[in-house]
Amino acid sequence: MFDEETLNQYIKSYQLKIEERIFQVSKIEEPVSLYEPYKYIMAEGGKRIRPLLVMIAADAVGSDALLAIDAAVAVEILHNFTLVHDDIMDKSTLRRGRQTVHTKWNESVAILLGDLMIGKAYELLPKNEYHKRADKIHHTFNRGLIEVCEGQGLDVEFDGNMNVTLADYLNMIEKKTSRLLETAVVIGANFGYGKDVDIKSLRQFANYLGIAFQIQDDLLDLTASTASFGKRTGQDLIDGKITFLIVKAMEKIKDDSDKILLNNFFFNHGINETEIENFKNLFEKYDIFMDAESEANKYFELAKLELNKLENNKGVEMLLLLTNKLNKRDK
Amino acid sequence: MFDEETLNQYIKSYQLKIEERIFQVSKIEEPVSLYEPYKYIMAEGGKRIRPLLVMIAADAVGSDALLAIDAAVAVEILHNFTLVHDDIMDKSTLRRGRQTVHTKWNESVAILLGDLMIGKAYELLPKNEYHKRADKIHHTFNRGLIEVCEGQGLDVEFDGNMNVTLADYLNMIEKKTSRLLETAVVIGANFGYGKDVDIKSLRQFANYLGIAFQIQDDLLDLTASTASFGKRTGQDLIDGKITFLIVKAMEKIKDDSDKILLNNFFFNHGINETEIENFKNLFEKYDIFMDAESEANKYFELAKLELNKLENNKGVEMLLLLTNKLNKRDK
Repeated sequence: MFDEETLNQYIKSYQLKIEERIFQVSKIEEPVSLYEPYKYIMAEGGKRIRPLLVMIAADAVGSDALLAIDAAVAVEILHNFTLVHDDIMDKSTLRRGRQTVHTKWNESVAILLGDLMIGKAYELLPKNEYHKRADKIHHTFNRGLIEVCEGQGLDVEFDGNMNVTLADYLNMIEKKTSRLLETAVVIGANFGYGKDVDIKSLRQFANYLGIAFQIQDDLLDLTASTASFGKRTGQDLIDGKITFLIVKAMEKIKDDSDKILLNNFFFNHGINETEIENFKNLFEKYDIFMDAESEANKYFELAKLELNKLENNKGVEMLLLLTNKLNKRDK
Repeated sequence: MFDEETLNQYIKSYQLKIEERIFQVSKIEEPVSLYEPYKYIMAEGGKRIRPLLVMIAADAVGSDALLAIDAAVAVEILHNFTLVHDDIMDKSTLRRGRQTVHTKWNESVAILLGDLMIGKAYELLPKNEYHKRADKIHHTFNRGLIEVCEGQGLDVEFDGNMNVTLADYLNMIEKKTSRLLETAVVIGANFGYGKDVDIKSLRQFANYLGIAFQIQDDLLDLTASTASFGKRTGQDLIDGKITFLIVKAMEKIKDDSDKILLNNFFFNHGINETEIENFKNLFEKYDIFMDAESEANKYFELAKLELNKLENNKGVEMLLLLTNKLNKRDK
């Protein structure tokens, strides 16, 4: 058993390593028109959850996190590529409180930058010469890339679609959000030559964690303060995104006068800023914020149960701590 | 020595294998909104030069082309991904005589499809378990992806820039066009366990071939017929693209009245369709079509000289035949 203080110090030291390595691999090269935005997008990355998961998963299977640093950065680059391209599709102007790439530069730069980043990410994956599980790691990474695209494709398909069920929604966020977390832990665990049974538990842990994280994210769209969340309150509603709140509302609300609001949301592919309060009231009235919170909590608990299947060590305790931190986040 | 008839039969049989394998790997999966355009873009691919180069390069180093079929299709998918994303940036509506993906569907689909295709391409690269040069092949592929993005980045930077020199232009097309051909032959040659010295010659061959091909492409923009070229005559001029013709014109034209046309081209980031004739006349007046033709021919010849460095065999003769065919193409 490690005390929380010690675990937090480990996490902080890993985060520092990640920042250091990201700084090294995002130098300005030619053409500057691509590498400047590359440095920009990689420079401010928040908590670096995904690369942390890679590193800590290596610890969790009894290996050394620091060996997996390049693979960790590869996963972080892959994640940031998805943000750059998703922001174009979603027409988002703000991300983590800063201008998005296509807003600060332009769309061509943002498209190309994302493409370049995929190549940069692959360059950091281990060669077989140095790692006996390189094939597995590459395969996991390929599948992560493909399924994250499929998930975003489903998300785009959902736009304006009133028939999306909770099951459809879960399938979408499993691909869009969970899969990259799964990719992270599976790569980390393979880097550490983990046993199949442990890798399976870690993958399932990340799957649940991703679902919990996304439902919470959907909730925070309306309950977090703008300053800390880094984007406007109600941005998902304005953008017409099909979130847990919307899917749940469609499931619960039968009253015709309340349904009008929802119908307009679908019909207009989103709402005006002035309507956000009405939606907040609607979700309150039908206990949908509570539903979201308890659904997120359920998946956080399921995630932690998976961790229990692993032999306890520093890595497993760090994953548990991270999960609890994410569970309690309010931004 | 093989007669041309036999070589042509080989090329045709390789093309058939490529089409067959492409058909197998571009099945419709979920989400249909992504896989339908995937099938669409992969289904009509013209001459399949790049996968042919992969396969024939394997022959050229004394191995068997058919072993390299999956790597060949990976390179073709990578090439098609660049087309999908470039067409968004260039706002092109037609490609090979068909609607571009962002025109037939929408921009989000085109962005996501390109991303998905990168993952699909990587999935077809050899695993180390089955090929001892998998690391090298992956590295070559990564560099191809990165540099093709850098090349397109330079191309975008060139937009409206009157100071682009012939050297800048050559640097750009080496990355944007040659690099993917180099990627093709280096992957094919490594697949066939070629010697370093032969791989070096093949890479240089592809480098020259790419330059020749691009200059010829710039020329065909004005001299090919619409029907056979698959896009409108003068499309590059309309789009404001910096081509060999433009760079050469900037270098040669000192006369003020003739310069006005060029200045307007840069100032307006392109021209109206009605002005195409004026530009044709301008290029004729300064022998710029002839310059382009002789420059392209020069690089085609340089490419062939590189082939002479290889021990002659069926593969080398096929590369020579392909080069001659490309040299004589009029579409």
